[in-house]
Amino acid sequence: MTFFDKKVGVLGGGQLGRMMIEAAHRLNIELVIVDPQTDSPAKQLSSGKDHIDLPFTDPEAIIKLAEKVDVITAEIEHVDTTTLSEIVKVQLQGKQFRNKKVGIYPSPKTIEVIQDKYRQHVVLHNASIPVAKFADVKDLLGARKIGKEFGYPFLLKAKKGAYDGRGNYVVKDPNELQTAWDTLSKQVIVKSSDKESGIHSDSGIYAEKMANFTKELAVMVVLGLDGETVCYPIVETEQKDNICHLVYTPVPIDGKILEKAQLVATNAVKVLNSTKVTIDEEGTKKTPKSAGVFGVELFLLENNEILVNEVAPRPHNSGHYTIEACETSQYENHLRAILGLPLGSTALKVNYAAMVNILGFSTPEDVNPMRYILHNALKVNGATVHFYGKKEVKKARKMGHITIVASNHAEFTSRVNQINKVIYAGEVLATEKFDPDSEIYKETRKFGQVPLVGIIMGSDSDLPVMKAAAEELRRFGVSFELTIVSAHRTPHRMVEYAESARSRGLKVIIAGAGGAAHLPGMVAALTPLPVIGVPVKGRILDGVDSLHSIVQMPRGVPVATVAINNATNAGLLAVRILGGTYSNFSEGMIGYMNDMRSEVETKIEKLESVGWEDY
Amino acid sequence: MTFFDKKVGVLGGGQLGRMMIEAAHRLNIELVIVDPQTDSPAKQLSSGKDHIDLPFTDPEAIIKLAEKVDVITAEIEHVDTTTLSEIVKVQLQGKQFRNKKVGIYPSPKTIEVIQDKYRQHVVLHNASIPVAKFADVKDLLGARKIGKEFGYPFLLKAKKGAYDGRGNYVVKDPNELQTAWDTLSKQVIVKSSDKESGIHSDSGIYAEKMANFTKELAVMVVLGLDGETVCYPIVETEQKDNICHLVYTPVPIDGKILEKAQLVATNAVKVLNSTKVTIDEEGTKKTPKSAGVFGVELFLLENNEILVNEVAPRPHNSGHYTIEACETSQYENHLRAILGLPLGSTALKVNYAAMVNILGFSTPEDVNPMRYILHNALKVNGATVHFYGKKEVKKARKMGHITIVASNHAEFTSRVNQINKVIYAGEVLATEKFDPDSEIYKETRKFGQVPLVGIIMGSDSDLPVMKAAAEELRRFGVSFELTIVSAHRTPHRMVEYAESARSRGLKVIIAGAGGAAHLPGMVAALTPLPVIGVPVKGRILDGVDSLHSIVQMPRGVPVATVAINNATNAGLLAVRILGGTYSNFSEGMIGYMNDMRSEVETKIEKLESVGWEDY
Repeated sequence: MTFFDKKVGVLGGGQLGRMMIEAAHRLNIELVIVDPQTDSPAKQLSSGKDHIDLPFTDPEAIIKLAEKVDVITAEIEHVDTTTLSEIVKVQLQGKQFRNKKVGIYPSPKTIEVIQDKYRQHVVLHNASIPVAKFADVKDLLGARKIGKEFGYPFLLKAKKGAYDGRGNYVVKDPNELQTAWDTLSKQVIVKSSDKESGIHSDSGIYAEKMANFTKELAVMVVLGLDGETVCYPIVETEQKDNICHLVYTPVPIDGKILEKAQLVATNAVKVLNSTKVTIDEEGTKKTPKSAGVFGVELFLLENNEILVNEVAPRPHNSGHYTIEACETSQYENHLRAILGLPLGSTALKVNYAAMVNILGFSTPEDVNPMRYILHNALKVNGATVHFYGKKEVKKARKMGHITIVASNHAEFTSRVNQINKVIYAGEVLATEKFDPDSEIYKETRKFGQVPLVGIIMGSDSDLPVMKAAAEELRRFGVSFELTIVSAHRTPHRMVEYAESARSRGLKVIIAGAGGAAHLPGMVAALTPLPVIGVPVKGRILDGVDSLHSIVQMPRGVPVATVAINNATNAGLLAVRILGGTYSNFSEGMIGYMNDMRSEVETKIEKLESVGWEDY
Repeated sequence: MTFFDKKVGVLGGGQLGRMMIEAAHRLNIELVIVDPQTDSPAKQLSSGKDHIDLPFTDPEAIIKLAEKVDVITAEIEHVDTTTLSEIVKVQLQGKQFRNKKVGIYPSPKTIEVIQDKYRQHVVLHNASIPVAKFADVKDLLGARKIGKEFGYPFLLKAKKGAYDGRGNYVVKDPNELQTAWDTLSKQVIVKSSDKESGIHSDSGIYAEKMANFTKELAVMVVLGLDGETVCYPIVETEQKDNICHLVYTPVPIDGKILEKAQLVATNAVKVLNSTKVTIDEEGTKKTPKSAGVFGVELFLLENNEILVNEVAPRPHNSGHYTIEACETSQYENHLRAILGLPLGSTALKVNYAAMVNILGFSTPEDVNPMRYILHNALKVNGATVHFYGKKEVKKARKMGHITIVASNHAEFTSRVNQINKVIYAGEVLATEKFDPDSEIYKETRKFGQVPLVGIIMGSDSDLPVMKAAAEELRRFGVSFELTIVSAHRTPHRMVEYAESARSRGLKVIIAGAGGAAHLPGMVAALTPLPVIGVPVKGRILDGVDSLHSIVQMPRGVPVATVAINNATNAGLLAVRILGGTYSNFSEGMIGYMNDMRSEVETKIEKLESVGWEDY
């Protein structure tokens, strides 16, 4: 029994189709998969008899599919858009396609533009979406000219058919041009079918200036049939040999930059889905309906500008983490979007999430390393292993991925590091150099840690008092930063520090000050975070001046004040506050309190056995 | 390609098998399903050709399965244990079953004991696991005798084959005995195959004394092949017409009781899996290996005692929520357990989780109400809909379920209430009484709310000051409780309040006191939660006495102190602290701070336009 009138056809039956069919099952939506492989990753998850065992580039397959289903979508962009466009065109003319209504989402026009990375750049650039400088390149001579203009290194790229590093060449100096040109020419799908853009005698290659980025970001944007859009959280992606290796969120940068990145990505998706198509001889144009999930890859530059790198018209590797970490997965939201159902909440339901790809290694005997990875990844708490059911292991083939979730940052970095180690060890095992007693584990790249607590003080003279807070945080394994911020000597620095604190991931600020002691209260006025104030004792007035300056805040702006010079308690209070979010800190506090009790009990025992006179 | 040597056979292909196969796909574990229905819910999710279309009670099906797979498990307890036991017995004798090693987990003996609820009670009771008083009942006369002994109402139950309320009868008075006996006798699977327990001429019915419980709890226990056990969080379950309606966690009761419940459940599972079986003519006994996930239903009595109600030898309805809410789902952990893989972390990865069942209604035209539920549930943030792909809707049949997750309690209760409304409206729609403008929504049962903040004060004379904290919490939508706890007049109450605070779900305590003002510091010494102290001004010393008593705490026990009489700031500080866990509060604080700024800006404008003389 199904509760939907509509059947969905999917072009492509790889891992993205597999995760899409998983989401479809939960909603009892029937999917029909088109893939040449009879037992492709997606088809393995379905007893359906309607699947079509033909290439998704085959016009015949598309016609067959259109006859079977109500909505067609794709899990890969390398599909036959000519046939898809024909179906859409017929329907835009107000006619039916073989007595039937078939929605094709995203629109074939959008897929067609995206398929050709050069055209994608032209469309985005013309709509004022920021992209790296780029240029068409007709031949080797043209490439040489561009090299001079863009400077080395620069990128030569195949316009079509590129994926996972294939079809991209970083040209480091003019001597490399010939090799780059020859390599790409072999990979290029030369034929450019686009008459409208006016590109003729196409080399199939274009050039891009290297973006001097500090981070590679990505975001999934959901476009509903009614034009509504929702964004997933921004993730940071790290590549290894041009293939996505690690994805994680939240990204510890200013919230305003994250919002800007979401806005740029959403606009890019809107632009790519609003291209008009000619529907008749008179040149009448219409915008076909579009919908679906789009993966947008971004560059964050040193000046905090955002550039769009490229857009994928489908669920994306950088959105796998949404299955375990978000209120609705990208796969379910893709189905909701193309079926016109309410879009699901994209909020993170965990505090931290990461995704690591499992790629095939080089040796043919690759099953053992994969087994090693699977069995060892299962030992890591918070890790969920996805293998895609691929028939065999090949070098650099995406075999599966592992999602990691965690409730606090210390746990998160530890778990990601454990998974990185497991995958690295698998790789070493594949190359037969594996020695379990070796020091090789130390070489695995460590995943970084952002601070949860900021300790600030007006002057270095406060450090002897304030370092007690740092010591407590270290004792409980709380990540922190410690610096000098003076309300009176560096007022602008104070404003900047306080205003960026929350978006940088801080959860609590501990501020120490003596005398007039304005720092804690001023910081509290500039951040919604809880601020703990430590009155530092000066040479006169015994610190009561600082105590009153810190504690007697006006209604509306609280400062959690501790005793004079008692930075220890400020550290402990921060741990208690964090305990509400991260239960390990709360449990650590219980242990600490038990230790304090035992210590006193030991003293009681000693006092009673020794007697008060000899104690 | 699979990375495991072992194929798994599953007896039963319903919704539990469906969710099990979903977990198996991710790990590329091959499952073979035995179910008479060719397109049963589990089989729909698999292109496998090996599935067996026979009843899971059919000995022939089990033999066929044993020949195909390496490990056999069940998603339903009503299987043919005789054949399963035979296979185990042969192997315990050191022989092979048809030249093959087949693990059967849980052990058939365990399933056999659990199948018969009376035997289950005997085994648990003999091992000192607390269960409600129970007795075998041979005939109607025996039932009458038991009625006198247990008192009315009491329960008559079919020993075998009961599920979802069927096979249970609450006998309210002696006049009902005849009807109860006749009803149950029709439902009973009379034949008792257990020679060892010495039960002869079995009526198939037994009696249970009504447990005077305050809550029904449940917990999933995972038993590894090596005997290791891990527990999922305790959930509270609410029944509607004897069928599980709502499951949620965390349960707002003392952590010590939750721990006790986990211990009782774990012991029950261990006891049920350690029964010995006779393997030869000489009466030699051995304990067969066992493993898997077990659903344990518990009663919490008024005196905080825990009773075991019953145990299921498989994933359980009360553990569905683990798919979206825990680091490893019960389904994946069941597979890990029976395959001897490392057990996965059972920790909650969200702050709050609930599960609501979707049951078939009474009318035959039930597709529309189901559609209504599906489409409207998709509008609720944090809700994940699971439909099981059942062929038709039947009254009280489990058609699907909805999991709800949330990051804070206000969001949680709102989301659960929305889902309850959707399901209730679906029910009304099914009975054709639905009127969207009616007041009927108001009748839907509201899901309760536990406080996040506790406001306490030494005396009611502090209330005029302290109520400002309550007002701030109300403004930000933070749930709280407010009461009087005096350090000096009710010292024991203070200890109890502080020590139970964390396990009751409180995240912050605000304590106000005047004069010697010991309450905040004493409470901080008894709980790991952050404690905010409000010095209340007395008639002499202007409150500086209270301020110093509260703020000058010794190293080790911090109190976050605010200004004298400034309970407003205590409330706001609590909101800031909660903002670290619940971002809506943090965003609320940003809005509040913006409002404060605007207010001052208005005054600036007025002052500048009116001039200082006329202001």
